[in-house]
This record gives sequence, structure tokens and C-alpha cells, in this order.
Amino acid sequence: MLPRGRPRALGAAGLLLLLLLLLTGFFLLGGYPECERREPGGRAGVPGCARCPLTPRVPLDGQLREAAAYDGDPPAGHGGHNRSACAPQPPLPPKCELLHVAIVCAGYNSSREVVTLVKSMLFYRKNPLHLHLVTDAMARNILGTLFRTWMVPAVVVSFYDAEELKPQISWIPNKHYSGLYGLMKLVLPGILPSSLTQVIVLDTDVTFASDIAELWALFAHFSDKQVIGLVENQSDWYLGNLWKNHRPWPALGRGFNTGVILLRLDRLRQAGWEQMWKPIARRVLLTLPATSLADQDIFNAVIKEHPGLVQPLPCVWNVQLSDHTLAERCYSETADFKVIHWNSPKKLRVKNKHAEFFRNLYLTFLGYDGKLLRRELFGCPSQLPPGAEQLQGALAHLDEEDPCFEFRQQQLTVHRVHITFLPHEPPPPRPHDVTLVAQLSMDRDIDFLPAYSLYDYLRASIEQLEPGSRQKAALVVPAFETLHYRFSFPSSKAELLALLDAGLLYTFRHHEWPRGHVPTDYARWREARVPYRVQWAADYEPYVVVPRDCPRYDPRFVGFGWNKVAHIVELDAQEYELLVLPEAFTIHLPHAPSLDLSRFRASPAYRDCLQALKEEFHQDLSRHYGAAALKYLTALQQPQSPA
Amino acid sequence: MLPRGRPRALGAAGLLLLLLLLLTGFFLLGGYPECERREPGGRAGVPGCARCPLTPRVPLDGQLREAAAYDGDPPAGHGGHNRSACAPQPPLPPKCELLHVAIVCAGYNSSREVVTLVKSMLFYRKNPLHLHLVTDAMARNILGTLFRTWMVPAVVVSFYDAEELKPQISWIPNKHYSGLYGLMKLVLPGILPSSLTQVIVLDTDVTFASDIAELWALFAHFSDKQVIGLVENQSDWYLGNLWKNHRPWPALGRGFNTGVILLRLDRLRQAGWEQMWKPIARRVLLTLPATSLADQDIFNAVIKEHPGLVQPLPCVWNVQLSDHTLAERCYSETADFKVIHWNSPKKLRVKNKHAEFFRNLYLTFLGYDGKLLRRELFGCPSQLPPGAEQLQGALAHLDEEDPCFEFRQQQLTVHRVHITFLPHEPPPPRPHDVTLVAQLSMDRDIDFLPAYSLYDYLRASIEQLEPGSRQKAALVVPAFETLHYRFSFPSSKAELLALLDAGLLYTFRHHEWPRGHVPTDYARWREARVPYRVQWAADYEPYVVVPRDCPRYDPRFVGFGWNKVAHIVELDAQEYELLVLPEAFTIHLPHAPSLDLSRFRASPAYRDCLQALKEEFHQDLSRHYGAAALKYLTALQQPQSPA
Repeated sequence: MLPRGRPRALGAAGLLLLLLLLLTGFFLLGGYPECERREPGGRAGVPGCARCPLTPRVPLDGQLREAAAYDGDPPAGHGGHNRSACAPQPPLPPKCELLHVAIVCAGYNSSREVVTLVKSMLFYRKNPLHLHLVTDAMARNILGTLFRTWMVPAVVVSFYDAEELKPQISWIPNKHYSGLYGLMKLVLPGILPSSLTQVIVLDTDVTFASDIAELWALFAHFSDKQVIGLVENQSDWYLGNLWKNHRPWPALGRGFNTGVILLRLDRLRQAGWEQMWKPIARRVLLTLPATSLADQDIFNAVIKEHPGLVQPLPCVWNVQLSDHTLAERCYSETADFKVIHWNSPKKLRVKNKHAEFFRNLYLTFLGYDGKLLRRELFGCPSQLPPGAEQLQGALAHLDEEDPCFEFRQQQLTVHRVHITFLPHEPPPPRPHDVTLVAQLSMDRDIDFLPAYSLYDYLRASIEQLEPGSRQKAALVVPAFETLHYRFSFPSSKAELLALLDAGLLYTFRHHEWPRGHVPTDYARWREARVPYRVQWAADYEPYVVVPRDCPRYDPRFVGFGWNKVAHIVELDAQEYELLVLPEAFTIHLPHAPSLDLSRFRASPAYRDCLQALKEEFHQDLSRHYGAAALKYLTALQQPQSPA
Repeated sequence: MLPRGRPRALGAAGLLLLLLLLLTGFFLLGGYPECERREPGGRAGVPGCARCPLTPRVPLDGQLREAAAYDGDPPAGHGGHNRSACAPQPPLPPKCELLHVAIVCAGYNSSREVVTLVKSMLFYRKNPLHLHLVTDAMARNILGTLFRTWMVPAVVVSFYDAEELKPQISWIPNKHYSGLYGLMKLVLPGILPSSLTQVIVLDTDVTFASDIAELWALFAHFSDKQVIGLVENQSDWYLGNLWKNHRPWPALGRGFNTGVILLRLDRLRQAGWEQMWKPIARRVLLTLPATSLADQDIFNAVIKEHPGLVQPLPCVWNVQLSDHTLAERCYSETADFKVIHWNSPKKLRVKNKHAEFFRNLYLTFLGYDGKLLRRELFGCPSQLPPGAEQLQGALAHLDEEDPCFEFRQQQLTVHRVHITFLPHEPPPPRPHDVTLVAQLSMDRDIDFLPAYSLYDYLRASIEQLEPGSRQKAALVVPAFETLHYRFSFPSSKAELLALLDAGLLYTFRHHEWPRGHVPTDYARWREARVPYRVQWAADYEPYVVVPRDCPRYDPRFVGFGWNKVAHIVELDAQEYELLVLPEAFTIHLPHAPSLDLSRFRASPAYRDCLQALKEEFHQDLSRHYGAAALKYLTALQQPQSPA
């Protein structure tokens, strides 16, 4: 059953979670040696001088000169088609070296956003990664569940509680849309493990277009005094001339953007980072009311006073698509940009003549099937997540010639779980709450609609039927169907009965498969005023409301075929009472036959396999329930058409 | 209307094309300087020594020693985690340098296969590419159409006729599944433009995992005498010990694989390549009956005699997933493999313990939406394909605030055309042939089924109705619908009428929108024995058979809404006779409402926009047809519910 508009309905009484199981340099600041670009057919001047990302040149005195590269022409020898300023490419880290990444992520939207970032990062990465995620409870739940079920090899995830950090930064007034969370990057040196010497810090709104190891390699450029690597800010914000009385925080020239940060944690701890940034922030706050750009304002104020701390990074590592960005001067110089930063509040809808280009890159990873990233790193020690090894073993033992091979493979598959995959704000929990649990593939438009008042009616029914002494119960919601696309949904049982009598509604699968719902006893339901008990019968597959601790669906029957039937058998075997609710109903709308259904009809092998799985199911029933399970087998052996 | 099982039916008489518009080294052979891998936090020994792909060391005497690295341990200092043999990474070509790629591609299957290769290559590339495609007529048609409509910036495609090359190689008996086409790589130096000095040659069954410019850069490693770059063959085939009396062609050690080739065309021409390979091939064919591996056998025989010609390439540039491959020793040494080669006849179904890993990479590009590759190369001179510039201009002029913005954007969108996207062998053309033309999105399962004999009946009707003097005609195929999923399709008009009388069939949209088909005059059709003429009426939208040169669908109405109605108006305005065929019929099966339909119902803006588009359509009609078009406007102004 599928929700439509109303986030309430049938399912297991309990938590309100809708689980969708998816099958589913133009910043030229300083002097590296130059090298000649190779002419076609010629030889390189300097080995290892690859198609140069625009690499910053660091002044010898360790001070930064004010960056004003936007305003003039690019320096001679730079940006030409055959010749370009170029630093030696730093060596990549050894292939099995663990790289550390820290991200602050809170709330539903950021949690969805960070998944696209992570997919882009995993797509290009070749090293094991350790993600340090500073999260609120929502993000922790969403991302914890996702990573646990995603089971990507060579990815370790640690969570840090954002709530605990709030006192350290809540004294800072901040006008940025990221709120308090935006400021948390400032306190990372204090909360990440003391054994961690360096980390890459990312905003949730960046997309990778290259291997993160190349970014990690830039730590090698740090001088002994440098502690933070940043890309210059690609807008005029910190120049303070955007509008009259625009008073930005102090910064060197255009300042730096903190969407991508390389942090030398060891040196920050040694230098007493907390005693460095807090007094500076307090001093600026004497003259300015608040930060406008959260942590970025404070990092820039610190760098303004201590320019020796910063290692400027090539602009390609943080191509900023803010409103009125100047980033074009960076990316038009090189096709080889590395990280895109959607730092406009408009995000993907930012106006930019190249927005379509960058959107295409983003959409590549937004739509990318994350299961394809379950790739091990060859030649590195096993980095399998919990459970993955047994799963791999079980999958490896499957016989590809078995006609049920695909079923068995599906059965073993662990699907990634995206909690609140679609934008969704869960209502506060209520007593006797009910969750609609649906099973669907992404390509199917909607098929069942619950009665308007069903949510409240089910809660009331559960309350009434819940005396401590009672049997376990499965509450049956009678199902109907319409064959018409345009259909006026009945607002009451009386209206529904009128439609039924007029032939505009049928009981569900009345023509094709009456056995599935006949035991609901529609004639009795018509007159019923109180819940009534019905008996299990072969092939009965009603829609039911059950407690959370009920038996789970048997993954053996994934796809079309017998999954609901098997579940009802299991409920009956565990002595659940089947109670039909007199005012509950749900209506099936027309849809095309499912792909699995077409396969079922087309393939005798598919039917044979389903038969074999049914037999295995019955063997398991006998094992669990003994002689009591005999009735199910007897019922199966009665003549019938295929389910 | 959609085909189902039978590739015949309604549509424009003419060519039988179903156009689906989609919305849519361990090869250690010699001695580069070694460098130390960087320790975490430390410094590199040699700048530019990146995480080394396993690079071949070239012996000083220019001769190859027999490669036997598979049989022993890897040499000391190689493949360790902290230290590794490593060549300086050659410089990448300048970012706007045009790289040349040649591919031989014939038939439907290879044409589909090559699209995945091209998508992977375009995804990682940062240089303009010139593709030289040697094709038969089928592949030329498929790929020519695809590239013309794909409109990828900075990609030039040249076609070469494979038929013309056959005489040059048809004398070579070949047992390989690639047939004659497999041998055509041998004659590339003679057919590619003489101005072309070097080219990368690829098999259709390779997938890129890196920027092809890195491969191009390896030309820089060629000595003055070397003319061909190849990766060693990753199986024991050429050792001749696979089975008793296994007699492979002569090769150096394990020989080389020709799935990925770097060719110095200038030197091959100078050296008289044709006079080199032909005598060697003839000589071997005196003792062996045929080539087993097509061109690869001959390249290896030539290299066996002239080992100085070959530049061995790092194994990562051709990771061969053949049956019983030894490639694991290559890729387990480095996560940084560059090209995967599916060179088993089983292709993706090859058995290999890492097959899943490599399949995931392949599936990434198989499923990748090619429209996302329409990305220009920043900073290079404009390389837009024909028509793209005007299109970009028109798109840039659209007003994003216009409520019809999305419609107008869709209208300007050029969709990629994949001819025979699904495996398909077209039947030979027949007189008075008929093609079914359907319009669908990939996520919609099937909605119309034509009568069994419709194809032959339509051909016969066209023959009868085609006297030279006759009016232009649109033949109407009456449409019906069933609301049942399980439905026994009528085999004749008599059976259809019986179902209609029994209430198991209705005339199409009888309940929801009778105006759309009432003018077909079902009562008359029931009795009709010969075609009869009907008059246009407002909102009439029958399914018709029309000549190829009929007016095209108006792209203004893309998505749901008025597209069929507008087309019938246009036919009537151009004085097509509407002739209903007495024995023709088609039946609509139940399906869920389309996404566009749901949008239409939900959004007043969508309806307003449709209304605006209708008005523009009528203005255009008046402009084209003058006063004669007034009747359409008058009809529109009559009260009606929304279409």
C-alpha cells in the first residue's frame, strides 16, 4: 500500500518511520618551479608536471600578499594553451593509507545532501576512508542506518554528538542559514581523536570530481608553520563593497572559503587553537553584531591576524557556485576542476551561465545507484564492514545454474535503507500510533489508497482491542478495487457500499483471484458494527495491521509471488487472531502489471522456482511449528491455479 | 501505441525503424628510476612519483625479455605498501589538444556495446576527441544518428566504410567471433588520414575508468623505433599449453592483447607496415589453418619477429577479464586500473571472483544518462556540434519565470536517438510497408495492443487505396479499451464485437472523454465492410496510419495534453481524408495514470500554460492556412471540459 498525500495509514503499530527500501589558482599567491607544457609529440620539461591544476605559489616570507588576481590579466605564461605555471604534482598517499574526512551534518535536508557528496567521493576514491560525522540525533539516525546497510568496503564511520558541542559555540551570534551547526568546524581539533594528525573538512554541499587522495596529498605542501589549507573565496564579499554599509568580517583580500579545509590537527592542538580563535572572535564581535558566514568569518579573522597559518590551495579544489561568483576565472583556465561547491542558498537553482554544466555533474551523483559503490579496494587488507564477510561468503556459495539463483541472490541482498528519502517532517509520536509500511520499486506511479479516516480509526481500534490478556491480533483492513482512472473516493463505508452496489467498485481481485480475500467475508463486513474474527484459509492474503514485533516478511519470496500469503500463514502459525475491522477499508487503483508479474507469466522456470521455494517454506514451517503446520501443507495440495 | 512481441503495426508507412526517443606492471619488462612512496606525513623521494600504476621498465637494449612475471614472486621493492618501483608519470597533453581514437564497429550488438565504451570515455575525458569509426552500414546508421542527436561538445566523429576494407583482409582465414571486422585494425594505417600521426585503437568491449589523456600521454615513452604500444596478454593462451595440441600463433612469451593499442601511424607508414605484416601472416598460415584471435594473432607474429617495434604498456591500461584470466595479479597490485576489457565471449557473465566489482563499473556507464555528458570543455575554443550553438542560444533566451518555461525547454530539447536500442533484427522491407511509431518514456510498462493481423491488413489497405489521383489519406484504426488485467485478446472483429456486447470491452475512453473518438462512428464501423470517410470534429484524436511525409507532431505539446488532437487538426488543415478501416482495431490495456497526467490534474499553472500553447497553436494555424483554419478556433471556443 502506498501513501498519497496523507502520511498516515496501515501497518505496524509503533514508530513513525517510513522506510523506503530502495532496490534500489586563479589564486596566484606566491613560487613553485615552472615547467613547460608538453607539445604534441614532444617531451616534458619537468617530469611529473601533469596538466596543471592552477597551483598557488607561496611567497618565501610566509606572508600572503593581498589577492587581487581577479582584477588584472592572468600573469604571463599562465593559462596559455601550450605553456603554464605549474607545480610538481605532490605524490599521492600510498594506496592503502586511511584518509580522514570530517563533516558536520544536521537535520533531514543536510543528511540527504551529504549522501550525494559521499557518493561522488566514493566514486573516485581509491583509498580507505574514515568519515568523522558530527551529527544531531536525526542525521545520526539517518546516516547511521544508511552506512550500516550500505556496507561499503573500506569505509569507517564515526559519529560525534553535535548537541555536546553547542555550549562551545552557542555564545557566537550567527546570521548564516547553517545556524549553530555552521560554527562547529571551529571546534573539530578538540573533539576528533587526539591520535588524528590531519583531516579534510567538507561542507555537505560539495561534489567531488576527482580522487580525494589528490586533495590529501596537498598536506605535503604545508610549511612547518602552516596549519590550515584553504581556497580563496571566489566572490567580492570580504572586499566589503557589495552594497552601501556592507561590513564584512576582517579578511585577507577576498578571504578564504571554508567549504573545503585541510586541517593539521596536531599543530592546531600544539598552538592552542581554542585560545587563538576565541579572543579574536570576541574582539570582532565588539564591533560587528554577528557572524554572517558562520565559521568562515572567524577563520578569516584569525588568518587576517596570523597569515602564516594558511596554505592557500588551488582554486579547483573549491569551485564556488555562489550567487555572482567569480569562479569562472578559475574553471575556465582548467578543465580539471576537482570539487564543486554549491554555496549559494539557491543551491542547484543558482543562476550562472555554466550552471547546467555543473548541475550535470551533480545530477550524475544524485542519480547514481549507491549499490554500485560496494567495491572493495584491491590489494588492501580486508576492510569489510560488519556482516559483509558472511554475506559475501553466502553469495559466493550460490549456484549460478540453480533456477532459483536470482531469488536466492535477492534474498541475501542487503538493501540500502534511506530513512526519509523524500523530504519529510515526521509528526510527533501519538499513543497507539500506526505506520504504513509499503514495499515498492522506484518505477511504480501508486496503487492503494486508504480510507480518509483510517489513521484515526486504526488508533482507536488498537486502543479498544488492547486489553493485556488478549490474544495477539492482526487487524484486517478489507480491500476493494476500482477499474476506473477517474474515481471519486468514498468518504464513508456507506458511500463505498453504494459504489459497490453500482458496480463501480469490486472486492479486491474479485475476478482474477477471489481466494486471496474471500475469507474476509465481505457479506458479513457489510453488516458488521464490531470487529469479527475470521479463520485462515489457503491463499488468504489480506492487508493487516500488526504489532511491531510480528513475524517479518520472508525474503524468500521477493518480487511477485506468495509473499503476503506466506506472511499470513506465519501469523496464523504463531496464533495471531485475524480480526476484520468493520469501518476500515482501502481501495486499489488501476495500474499496469508489474514487471515481476509479467516475468511470472512468461517463464515456466520462474513458476517452478516459486514452487520450490514454497516447498522450502513448508519444510521450515514444519520444523518450527511441528504437526500444527500440517494444515498449511494440506491446503497447498488442494487443486488451485497459480498464485 | 506500443509493440508487444510482434514488431509490426500502426504508423507512418515507410522504413522499418523503431525510433525510441529517450527522455531520457606486473609486466615488469625493463628499468625506470625507482622512487620511494611517501610515508604518511613525510615527503616524497622523487617529485611526480604518483601512486604508481605498474609501469613497464624498458630494457636498455630495446629487446623484450620473455615475460614470465606471473610464475614467480613479484620482484623485491615492487608491490609493497610503502615502497614501489615507479616511473615518472608522463605529462598529460595540453588541455585543448585533440586526441584521436579509432574503433572498428559493425552490426547491432557492437553498436550498442560501443555506446557504453564511449560514455565511460566521455565521462573522464577533459580533451577534445576525434573518433574514427570503421563501420558497416548498420553501425554507421545507428552511430551516425546517435552522435548527430547527442550533440556532445568537443567530439568529432568520422566514419570509414568497412565494406571497402574487406578485400584487404578477406584472404585471411579467421576463427574468432569478431569475424572479418576483427582483422580491420591491421589496415588502419592505410585508411586513416595521412595527416594523423598517432591514434589510440580500442575494441568495443572496453570500459574506461580514467581519463584517456593519461593513455595518450604514454606515447611519450616510445623510443624512436617503437611504433605500437600494447599491454601483455593476461592469459596463458600464447604459451600454447592450454590443452593438448593447442597450437597458438607465435608470440613473445604471453604475447600482447590488442584490445587497447597505441599506434604511431607516421612511423608505421614510413616502415611500410603493409609489406611487413602481410608476408609474416602468409608464412604462419602455411603451417596454421587460420587466425584464432583475429588481428591479435598477426600483431603478435609481427612483434615476435620485430620485438623492437613494441612499447609495452602498464597492465592497468587493459585489464583483461577473459575466461581464466591472470589479470588479478595486475589489479590486486593497484587500485588504480584504467581500462577494463571484457574479452571473454561471455562478456559480463564471465566467471571471476571479482566479476561483481568490474560489472559494477560497467553498469555505472551502461546506465549513465548520456545527456549529462553534454558538457563543454572550459577554456577551449568552441567545439559545438552542428546546430548546438543556435539551440544553446534559444535555450538561453527562455524566461525561467514563464509558466510555460518547462514546456518551451522541452520543445527545444534535442533527444538522443538510439536506433534499435533494444536487441532487434529488422525484417527485410516489404511493399506498402508500415512502421509503428510510439512515444513513451522508459518507465512506462505497455498500453496498446494492435489486432493480430493488423500489419498485413494495413499493407493490403494501403495497396488498395493508393491510386495516383487520390486525396492524401489518414487511415483511422478504431480504438477500444479493456479495464481487466487478464484479458483474452480477440482474434477477429467478430470476437471483438462479442466482447463489446458483453461489456468486457469499451470504445476507447468511453467514460472519461468520448469526444476523442466519437467521430470514428463506432456504430457505422460495426457494420462497415469497406473504408468510410469521417469528418474532423473538435478534440478528435484517433490513431491513424499516414504517409511518411505527413505533418509531424508539434513538439509544443510534449508530455500529456493535446498533442494527438493538434496533429489531427494539422492533417485536416492539410486536407487529408480521414478514412476508417473496417477490419482494423487496437485495444488499450489498463495502466496507472502517467506522471504528466497527474501533474496536469494537480497544477492550475500547467493547465494555464497548456491553454496558452493552444492559443499559440491556433495563431500558427491561421498564419499557415488563413480563413480555412477559423473552424478550429470556433470549435475550441465551444464549452468543453479540459482535454
